[in-house]
Amino acid sequence: MKILVINSGSSSLKYQLIDMNNEKVLAKGLCEKIGETNSNFKHKTFDGREFEKLINMSNHKEAFVEVKNILINKEYGVLDDLSEISAVGHRIVQGGSLFKDSVIIDDDVISKIESLIPLAPLHNAAHLHGILACKEVLNVTQVAVFDTSFHSTMPPKAYMFALPYEYYEKYNIRRYGFHGTSHRYVSKRCAELMGKDIESLKIITCHIGNGSSITAINGGKVLDTSMGLTPLDGIMMGTRCGTIDPSVVTYIAEKENLSFSEIDDIMNKKSGLLGISGISNDDREVIKAANEGNQRAILAHEMLRYQMTKIIGSYIAALQGCDAIVFTAGVGENQWPHREAVCENLAFLGLEIDKDINRNTVLGKEGKISKDSSKISVYVIPTNEELVIARDTKKLLEK
Amino acid sequence: MKILVINSGSSSLKYQLIDMNNEKVLAKGLCEKIGETNSNFKHKTFDGREFEKLINMSNHKEAFVEVKNILINKEYGVLDDLSEISAVGHRIVQGGSLFKDSVIIDDDVISKIESLIPLAPLHNAAHLHGILACKEVLNVTQVAVFDTSFHSTMPPKAYMFALPYEYYEKYNIRRYGFHGTSHRYVSKRCAELMGKDIESLKIITCHIGNGSSITAINGGKVLDTSMGLTPLDGIMMGTRCGTIDPSVVTYIAEKENLSFSEIDDIMNKKSGLLGISGISNDDREVIKAANEGNQRAILAHEMLRYQMTKIIGSYIAALQGCDAIVFTAGVGENQWPHREAVCENLAFLGLEIDKDINRNTVLGKEGKISKDSSKISVYVIPTNEELVIARDTKKLLEK
Repeated sequence: MKILVINSGSSSLKYQLIDMNNEKVLAKGLCEKIGETNSNFKHKTFDGREFEKLINMSNHKEAFVEVKNILINKEYGVLDDLSEISAVGHRIVQGGSLFKDSVIIDDDVISKIESLIPLAPLHNAAHLHGILACKEVLNVTQVAVFDTSFHSTMPPKAYMFALPYEYYEKYNIRRYGFHGTSHRYVSKRCAELMGKDIESLKIITCHIGNGSSITAINGGKVLDTSMGLTPLDGIMMGTRCGTIDPSVVTYIAEKENLSFSEIDDIMNKKSGLLGISGISNDDREVIKAANEGNQRAILAHEMLRYQMTKIIGSYIAALQGCDAIVFTAGVGENQWPHREAVCENLAFLGLEIDKDINRNTVLGKEGKISKDSSKISVYVIPTNEELVIARDTKKLLEK
Repeated sequence: MKILVINSGSSSLKYQLIDMNNEKVLAKGLCEKIGETNSNFKHKTFDGREFEKLINMSNHKEAFVEVKNILINKEYGVLDDLSEISAVGHRIVQGGSLFKDSVIIDDDVISKIESLIPLAPLHNAAHLHGILACKEVLNVTQVAVFDTSFHSTMPPKAYMFALPYEYYEKYNIRRYGFHGTSHRYVSKRCAELMGKDIESLKIITCHIGNGSSITAINGGKVLDTSMGLTPLDGIMMGTRCGTIDPSVVTYIAEKENLSFSEIDDIMNKKSGLLGISGISNDDREVIKAANEGNQRAILAHEMLRYQMTKIIGSYIAALQGCDAIVFTAGVGENQWPHREAVCENLAFLGLEIDKDINRNTVLGKEGKISKDSSKISVYVIPTNEELVIARDTKKLLEK
């Protein structure tokens, strides 16, 4: 059984074709700058054949036609016939309170995803373009896998904001959390690596990339997560400010005479590592500058590590203990100095990091970076959201 | 030496006259609804004489004249002559980055307090009215004691928000923290009660009242505190939302078509315990409703206790350990069920609360509520900001 996984952004479409007999990626690629004049198409197969070309793609449907064509292309393809694709699994960012699990997409699901656009304007609208493009071009079952659904087990004490209750009733304003597919994958994998039943474990998963979130998982169920109504909340990120005093939002807007959408834009696109360092949202650039002695780059990292330490500390208290901490995503998988600093901050709890192993666990390597004597185990686990989407899709197909 | 302590709000003026030879309160009182038609004056002496009357006070100067008069009144007074007052100490909420310590008020200090009005519009403007009223009526040294100055030791990693750095440079937007005088008093008192040097202690102080903040203190110096640029940030309070996803601010404002000041008003005055419970900002009312089974009152308390647990947990991680936790202010001193719940959440760290002692430590009682075997000591310490202000004033007079 072969499953195509689709992740559509507002001007992009990422895909992976996975053979579910061995969970091997047959091909993957990316259409970027869809709708712009210089839209670009990249494709790569399991055996190293690569294709990259500027191709005019004015919408998601045109992009999806390119994907379909290359998958059966004689030179770059991996399929004899499109009928080999059993189903398509879509990543959907916002499932609100409507989707606690992955579902087969029908008209009702489409209208519900549409109804959630106000809670994730850019993402859900783009996902709908992807779904509709797929529907027109391929006649197979489509499945929606939501970033939020793993977090649907959060109790009200964790998901409610202390605002007038009517806003929760009228607009469903609450913490939803995101990156759920990633937190689900790495927490499950962590339990496997520990050789323990996930139901017996308290795990804190740190998805630290350009977007970042940290999740407290008790017995396989999310207790709390750092992203909120939107992916702006929580720890500082590449360009997002994370949690700040809410009065600062209106304070800056008034001082700078900004509209709501302009201040939103600043908090989402000009803050975080980029805003503090003034250098880049890419942590590799910030590390380079910090190593060269740039004070604002150093400050950005001090803040990042301090905030990670505090959020992990708050989740250890919320969980009333912690068996394991997992680092994943671009920064979490590769930037060992952050992991070392955060783990050293937590040494007072009996957490002992193995510095050598930590330094060597980069570039997609999976493994334990704490010592065997450590009271809290620490793992680096490369995330694999596409595999989770493909697995959920397969499971729903076989139901 | 007798010192008059003044705390002026936008329509109120609170005072205490303290005899510094024995730190005894000779008289205290409150002018409320200043500038309104029903302004009210309350006064009480150390020996139980009480005065209360509706008196027309159209501004702070008129209020201060009433205070002055009653202090030397034959029936209700405690002084033979105003010259017995050696100095006046003022509580000032916002000292920004300008005041790291208490200071004698001169023209330069007045203009600096004025320059900080944008960072605390209601408070600092009111304090200035109080200072100027005092200056006109009494010809003695005046001292300013800032809510923020105890927090001035915070490192940048704790006080910076991950926003574009220019806002810090242009507008001094950062975490300042408040209730500093209270956190200073109870942390110092905690060290005394422990019989230890504060420089050797890691203490977390929880000032939980109608306004609430929690502070992490390392060796007598503040490392971090939960209030931010304004007193809105941190833990949920009587009517304030505390920390929320910053995108929620603009989300609600757009949905409800609110101006910046209207959404600020909602976050400051209609949220917190009041917003969630729908009952009251007064925790005694919320407790009553929760005990009667009101679900939203129960939720408000679950949130409050959970948020306290998380903030304390984050500060334990920030401090890399904790020797003592202190509860103070109205809710902190009296609502033992919250203390019990929070301490039980932290039992995994070896914190052992003595439930009986905890239940009996209310109504201004001071004492340790943890067992001797507890790895973290827990105290209830009634706060006394006026005494700190009087002590600072005396110290500056004697310099």
